[in-house]
Amino acid sequence: MTFEAQLIKTLKSIEPISDEHAALAATRLDNLTKPQKSLGRIEDLAIQLAAITRTERPVLTRAAVMVCAGDHGVVDEGVTSFPQEVTVGMVANFTHQGAAINQLSNTLDVQVEVYDVGVAADTSMFSGIHQCKVALGTENMAKGVAMTRELFCQAVLVGYEQATELLKSGMDMLCLGEMGIGNSSAAATITAAITQTPINRVVGRGAGLSDEQLNHKISVLDDALRINDVANQDIIGIGAAVGGLEIAMMTGIVLACAQNKRPVIADGYISGSAVLLAVALVPQVRDYVVFSHRSVEQGHQAMYEHLDARPLFDLDLRLGEGTGAVLAVPFVRSACAVITGMATFEEAGL
Amino acid sequence: MTFEAQLIKTLKSIEPISDEHAALAATRLDNLTKPQKSLGRIEDLAIQLAAITRTERPVLTRAAVMVCAGDHGVVDEGVTSFPQEVTVGMVANFTHQGAAINQLSNTLDVQVEVYDVGVAADTSMFSGIHQCKVALGTENMAKGVAMTRELFCQAVLVGYEQATELLKSGMDMLCLGEMGIGNSSAAATITAAITQTPINRVVGRGAGLSDEQLNHKISVLDDALRINDVANQDIIGIGAAVGGLEIAMMTGIVLACAQNKRPVIADGYISGSAVLLAVALVPQVRDYVVFSHRSVEQGHQAMYEHLDARPLFDLDLRLGEGTGAVLAVPFVRSACAVITGMATFEEAGL
Repeated sequence: MTFEAQLIKTLKSIEPISDEHAALAATRLDNLTKPQKSLGRIEDLAIQLAAITRTERPVLTRAAVMVCAGDHGVVDEGVTSFPQEVTVGMVANFTHQGAAINQLSNTLDVQVEVYDVGVAADTSMFSGIHQCKVALGTENMAKGVAMTRELFCQAVLVGYEQATELLKSGMDMLCLGEMGIGNSSAAATITAAITQTPINRVVGRGAGLSDEQLNHKISVLDDALRINDVANQDIIGIGAAVGGLEIAMMTGIVLACAQNKRPVIADGYISGSAVLLAVALVPQVRDYVVFSHRSVEQGHQAMYEHLDARPLFDLDLRLGEGTGAVLAVPFVRSACAVITGMATFEEAGL
Repeated sequence: MTFEAQLIKTLKSIEPISDEHAALAATRLDNLTKPQKSLGRIEDLAIQLAAITRTERPVLTRAAVMVCAGDHGVVDEGVTSFPQEVTVGMVANFTHQGAAINQLSNTLDVQVEVYDVGVAADTSMFSGIHQCKVALGTENMAKGVAMTRELFCQAVLVGYEQATELLKSGMDMLCLGEMGIGNSSAAATITAAITQTPINRVVGRGAGLSDEQLNHKISVLDDALRINDVANQDIIGIGAAVGGLEIAMMTGIVLACAQNKRPVIADGYISGSAVLLAVALVPQVRDYVVFSHRSVEQGHQAMYEHLDARPLFDLDLRLGEGTGAVLAVPFVRSACAVITGMATFEEAGL
């Protein structure tokens, strides 16, 4: 069976969240010892978690962030402020606990798992990196497709399988994380293609481009969309032509969480592009996603509008790695604690 | 010595935060393995924490929420949607772990300490409540002063002493929390007086008033401001005339944190009124405050404008008890972890 056929088969069994459990949760929340709705979006989150997990009183504690690393051929066009070697350098940094995602995750009791799905260098000498490489980075999308449809589907399935394994090992929720120099270019082309927004409205400065560099990036990505005739592609075609291996892997993680009825926490713009792909493939997965933050990248807002979603917070983040997603983990745990542990007015004798 | 003289003496030794350590922290953050400023407001928070604690690499872990309970004579005017007995009922609920603040704090590893500084009922039968009562609630501010200047200063000093004790016992940060039916009325009158905003622009629905009840509340509070000639009062006079005992106690907590060079995390509108009083007394304490969230109460925005502050998140909360403040504790810990634990580019060989 081709990877594409395998992926299509997988998508068929994903169910929508449970409206019945959402209603039960909403009723329960209204009877707890607080003014009704006074916990605002924490209550909305509790309702979503109940609907995802099919229980009135969800208990979700254990969290992991899956940091998917991959490289991008489009860096040849000079669209990034850091050189490609920084991808593998940061993978090494993850193994030494030196990166932001390590420090945040340790503090917030989130397990960090790092995956090489497409780094353009050997990472096998670094201990603790999951070796899932399907290619040494993508091709340059400004000159042709970033990868074949089969390679895209293979990377999605890697994410699906690795996420399923973590969920089966007892994780209650998964956070999307990534590392890949050039991946804000891929996120922008995916966003432009799926939300049908002009590329100049969804391109951002990534890790820190100047005005001139930004204009160059826009021009390169415009070429990539045109050369690959992205307007006439299906979703897998878009992901293959202008996506990234780590983005494909995150798409698979989103699908696996929905399949397993567990929440997946999206991070910023790059992980958002993986959510866009997953939702375009299977619309009902959208409701399994907890949207953590609004990134500084302007295209992130276009995504939120397309998905009709509102993030939990807005901290001017633009780092990636899953940093915003892990910052939302305490909110998920808190929402569960409220609906599961609080007394009703009756129980409190009030 | 009068309580007022004692309070005035205490205020004199509060120092501003350290610009020198803020600068050291900013430089360190720019050398860590991430694009500069890419952690946005988490970096701003790290700089503030460094400046508060006078260290380039702050380590702040242990947190407590001080839930200050008090009653309000103005409930006689029918300005609340719950009866006064709910204050003591909720104090009982706190001791049984049934309230939102218990569940959130347990989840987020925050210690809950509950203080009776002015409940209009005996709470001594409930185990674990700090007995700090200075009066059985305030008087009705629509008929005269809510309390004497001495009583206000006494309640502030209770907060100052209890907070100092917790900090000396090893707490790294304190969260402001409160319970008191009617206290959104006191918060509104304080906010109107200090920010010089018309009362109708700072009054909100509290725990859930109708339009008609809201108009009545505005009219009652307008009377209270006029009868007590609040426009011509000094800060202690405002706090005494239209404040609350739990609000006064929280003012003391803010002052103690600034005095001890530790962050204090503000919650919503009620705790914000305590911050307004503290900052009006000693302007430099403002920089010791971490502002957690923007409440649904419209007056909260007026406060933020007056204080030139921006909260970390906006979750449509309007519960109080310290719930929004404890939700910010993971952000404080995360900011410390970033600046203290991350590798520099040089250390990572990048």
